[in-house]
Amino acid sequence: MAFVNNPKYTGVIPPVVTPRSAAGQIDIPSLQRVVEHLIAGGVSGLFVLGSSGEVPYLSNAEREQVMRTIVSANAGRVPILAGASEQTTVRTIEEGAKLLALGADALVVTTPFYALSNAGEIEAHFRAIKAALQVDIFAYDVPVRTHHKLPLDVAIRLATDGVIVGVKDSSGDDVSFRQLLLAAGGIEGFSVFTGHEVVVDGALLGGAHGVVPGLGNVDPAGYRRLFDLAVAGNWAEAAAEQDRLAALFNIVYTPDSTRVSGGAAGLGAFKTALVELGVITSNTMSVPMEALNAQEAAAIRVILDETGLLTAVAS
Amino acid sequence: MAFVNNPKYTGVIPPVVTPRSAAGQIDIPSLQRVVEHLIAGGVSGLFVLGSSGEVPYLSNAEREQVMRTIVSANAGRVPILAGASEQTTVRTIEEGAKLLALGADALVVTTPFYALSNAGEIEAHFRAIKAALQVDIFAYDVPVRTHHKLPLDVAIRLATDGVIVGVKDSSGDDVSFRQLLLAAGGIEGFSVFTGHEVVVDGALLGGAHGVVPGLGNVDPAGYRRLFDLAVAGNWAEAAAEQDRLAALFNIVYTPDSTRVSGGAAGLGAFKTALVELGVITSNTMSVPMEALNAQEAAAIRVILDETGLLTAVAS
Amino acid sequence: MAFVNNPKYTGVIPPVVTPRSAAGQIDIPSLQRVVEHLIAGGVSGLFVLGSSGEVPYLSNAEREQVMRTIVSANAGRVPILAGASEQTTVRTIEEGAKLLALGADALVVTTPFYALSNAGEIEAHFRAIKAALQVDIFAYDVPVRTHHKLPLDVAIRLATDGVIVGVKDSSGDDVSFRQLLLAAGGIEGFSVFTGHEVVVDGALLGGAHGVVPGLGNVDPAGYRRLFDLAVAGNWAEAAAEQDRLAALFNIVYTPDSTRVSGGAAGLGAFKTALVELGVITSNTMSVPMEALNAQEAAAIRVILDETGLLTAVAS
Amino acid sequence: MAFVNNPKYTGVIPPVVTPRSAAGQIDIPSLQRVVEHLIAGGVSGLFVLGSSGEVPYLSNAEREQVMRTIVSANAGRVPILAGASEQTTVRTIEEGAKLLALGADALVVTTPFYALSNAGEIEAHFRAIKAALQVDIFAYDVPVRTHHKLPLDVAIRLATDGVIVGVKDSSGDDVSFRQLLLAAGGIEGFSVFTGHEVVVDGALLGGAHGVVPGLGNVDPAGYRRLFDLAVAGNWAEAAAEQDRLAALFNIVYTPDSTRVSGGAAGLGAFKTALVELGVITSNTMSVPMEALNAQEAAAIRVILDETGLLTAVAS
Repeated sequence: MAFVNNPKYTGVIPPVVTPRSAAGQIDIPSLQRVVEHLIAGGVSGLFVLGSSGEVPYLSNAEREQVMRTIVSANAGRVPILAGASEQTTVRTIEEGAKLLALGADALVVTTPFYALSNAGEIEAHFRAIKAALQVDIFAYDVPVRTHHKLPLDVAIRLATDGVIVGVKDSSGDDVSFRQLLLAAGGIEGFSVFTGHEVVVDGALLGGAHGVVPGLGNVDPAGYRRLFDLAVAGNWAEAAAEQDRLAALFNIVYTPDSTRVSGGAAGLGAFKTALVELGVITSNTMSVPMEALNAQEAAAIRVILDETGLLTAVAS
Repeated sequence: MAFVNNPKYTGVIPPVVTPRSAAGQIDIPSLQRVVEHLIAGGVSGLFVLGSSGEVPYLSNAEREQVMRTIVSANAGRVPILAGASEQTTVRTIEEGAKLLALGADALVVTTPFYALSNAGEIEAHFRAIKAALQVDIFAYDVPVRTHHKLPLDVAIRLATDGVIVGVKDSSGDDVSFRQLLLAAGGIEGFSVFTGHEVVVDGALLGGAHGVVPGLGNVDPAGYRRLFDLAVAGNWAEAAAEQDRLAALFNIVYTPDSTRVSGGAAGLGAFKTALVELGVITSNTMSVPMEALNAQEAAAIRVILDETGLLTAVAS
Repeated sequence: MAFVNNPKYTGVIPPVVTPRSAAGQIDIPSLQRVVEHLIAGGVSGLFVLGSSGEVPYLSNAEREQVMRTIVSANAGRVPILAGASEQTTVRTIEEGAKLLALGADALVVTTPFYALSNAGEIEAHFRAIKAALQVDIFAYDVPVRTHHKLPLDVAIRLATDGVIVGVKDSSGDDVSFRQLLLAAGGIEGFSVFTGHEVVVDGALLGGAHGVVPGLGNVDPAGYRRLFDLAVAGNWAEAAAEQDRLAALFNIVYTPDSTRVSGGAAGLGAFKTALVELGVITSNTMSVPMEALNAQEAAAIRVILDETGLLTAVAS
Repeated sequence: MAFVNNPKYTGVIPPVVTPRSAAGQIDIPSLQRVVEHLIAGGVSGLFVLGSSGEVPYLSNAEREQVMRTIVSANAGRVPILAGASEQTTVRTIEEGAKLLALGADALVVTTPFYALSNAGEIEAHFRAIKAALQVDIFAYDVPVRTHHKLPLDVAIRLATDGVIVGVKDSSGDDVSFRQLLLAAGGIEGFSVFTGHEVVVDGALLGGAHGVVPGLGNVDPAGYRRLFDLAVAGNWAEAAAEQDRLAALFNIVYTPDSTRVSGGAAGLGAFKTALVELGVITSNTMSVPMEALNAQEAAAIRVILDETGLLTAVAS
């Protein structure tokens, strides 16, 4: 597989988790270790202040602290994509300008949220942000959070006109994803990334250029292997690696759903796994999310073992 | 009707619109006239930076400008409730502290949004904000925007424990609203407000303490009459006044829905009506919302005429 | 309150429950007692084969058995409205013709379900059914089941053109309900009924002509009192009676929601209350719904006592 | 790729469309030609009375007519899977028994619809149907129609216990699909089919055993080629064939969405394409769906040409 359209971004760009100390502060040394863990795993970029980074839960000062830490730890080794997660256009521009000043190479922007928008407003939103900031923009399509699906025709127009340099699709709509790949996947320099951890092999087979996996915090090397196998056309091996990663993804189903929210389950599982792997020191969550408990951590440890990650640590 | 539970807040507390000049800036003189229009109409409070105030579309500087203008224009005549509209807990606390410093008497707080929460997190969210700020808090239940319904049992616990002083219900769930009234409507000092403009008579009949009507920007005196008739037990007249206001509410259905979003239709109609009534100078909307056009304004003028508001202006 | 538009249907028309013996068969004597209980309570019609009658769970033979039993027990005392609950148009016409042959006076028809419809198809659906059967048709707006809201403009056109004689609104959209009342509530002979048990006072204040209360199976006399108080303009007393009925409605919240489905909770509570009141012999549910257990029945008994229904039985 | 678990069903099993004459009757000769077209294309089974067969729109007599026609035309060449599409358990058993008597080899069963179910009821529903009919059952997971997602753990238990022989997944939830493949895809004799026409390559790469493509009515040979390429491990060619089929799938987006419903657009496009290909004589739809018009047919003809299907006809 060669990407004939010369996409600017390819490969594995995980949304970096935000470790907190047991006392609830941003844990800078742990965050620095996460960055090393990811770059050592072969990622091709870092997505800072994404949903997996608990961005809706961070104060403005914490957002800045996270950006500074990651930019400094990265030291220019891979591109920094930063999430400008605000409700609508002018707030996103304000937030985006801050993130660029802090060292972001590109911005990741959702549709408006909390607002009751339509397709026209969504398109105008992205165009206004691009016009104001003149920087690479990834459209982040995450209707489970924003409750607006990025319309396919809007995405294609934004791609064609160079307003966006890529799409990170977490829509869960695989049909629309394939249509986007067919219509825009070949635009010179454009990238289509999937955000769904367990269907990356199929996405790459369909022409996707990369993945933004929350689970990539736990096993960046696994996602890099999967990507490399796909690029090499070793699809059966890619699928086998994907199956292993899908088994690993089961860590997000270990928390007790009567206690832990959907948001806290996934992020909490990633953090808990990183504690088990020795990368971070605590699985403390942002207020008001609950951390996973010892029983849930034990269940995660079993899965890490079964999918070969504890061996990797020991060796 | 006497409110036997001595609610601290009653009556009509409209969410104040945010006028913009044709050039898109906050229109301070128009906003000052809106405040006079509302207070002259007999409102018992002002809800600043609500959805009808386009709060998700305002920059941080604009939010501050709006607060300062309204607080100054109001000059202590009625209480100021201010919307602390941020994604989750710590951001809401940050925003709320700013608003209190600017003169808010109480805060209006939604469930978390963009976040994937559950009932436990929603309850913890309100408790943490109350603990941090120690101010009157209204829970604003608006699932069409936050996509989390404030659970009835959570609302009752928060009311019972004094965490919230009231609920503004824009949930559209009339069954839950009545259950809330039955369970919490009698708590000493507590208030239940409806946010639905066209069912206020029934809400008051069921025991509600007031209304937060976006349409109250256009006809505050009408809502005050409706409230007074209900308090006096003149239910048939209250229903007739409600019917007139429901007919007036049809202004929100005049915009072309293939062009104007759901959010822009309602707010745009309120602003356009205020232009027609001579209160503000332009119906310009926040980016990326489209303003209503001349044809839509003409249709609104007809409705204003039919419901007696143009006569009121002329006299 | 006088209904100036001479509606053909007014008052309380409960959706009749379908009792089953412990062995799971339709319990004919219990069903006959339910009919007597309802007519003695002052209902103005019987809605047979509605959701509360478990119509989606009945075999074709059981549907016929239920119709025959109720028609025979009623013996012409009140009108019989029967639910023709099929997926789309021709199936509804087939089912409706059967019900008319069995003695229905009018049909209750939903929007299509399972199908992926639009407003045009919904309108054509009702028009085709009316053209084929030439009988009184109530549109039953229940998007929680059909997942299509009956569009307001469609309802108004169908009412204006005499295609439907009334609407039973279980949409939970109180704003749309008021708009329907304003636009169609005055059409000669037309009726707007609410299906929401706890907001009937407000609905009647707004001009509704009656109610189709599942809870009316348990306390038909209470709903009749509420209706009569409203018609007499005694709104404060109507609201007090509604409050008592809303407290009674809490029986539907007693079941353990981790075991009992949303559908089984409401219907199971009505049946369990009827067992406690001595009207029917078993609270057995249709397959695959679970019946309420002894603990849940005990909680229901407490509510029946608190709302005065056990006294009524004893006296 | 070898299916190591010896699934009973594999390959391409299209949901057969139901042609109608211009006058609206079932068009028997056209339906017979569809069967020949499909079998000539290499399908491994026929799914009769599925959503693509307009099953919710057919009268009972029409359902029987369609079954008899297809069973007779097929003459035992491939297995017949028939959709028992009724609201809940006993109605599904009744319908299923009829279909078995008419020659079905297996039944396709959805979760309950119109009913307000939970996971327990869904599981009991499938178990009761299997117990009553003792036949191969495919669970058809189509939440866009039933509004209940077949829960993953329920599906796994039903598969493990032999209650279902397969799943047809039209849920649009690709993550859940992969988890089902991982957990149940290897159960001896079990089959997982995707219902999504444009992501079959990825589904097969992930271990799926086949596809139920509505678009397979139009191009059965294309889907068979895609399946064979995947089985042979020629993934790049499989993806290219999938891309061609995804381009062909664009026929469903040609209808004017302000006139034609979502349901009618897809099925209407398949029928219109079959008219263009000379397989059926009319694209008439079941009441109340509108047929595509000449302009929409012309747009479809262009797509058929671009994707090589008109050439195939000519040659």
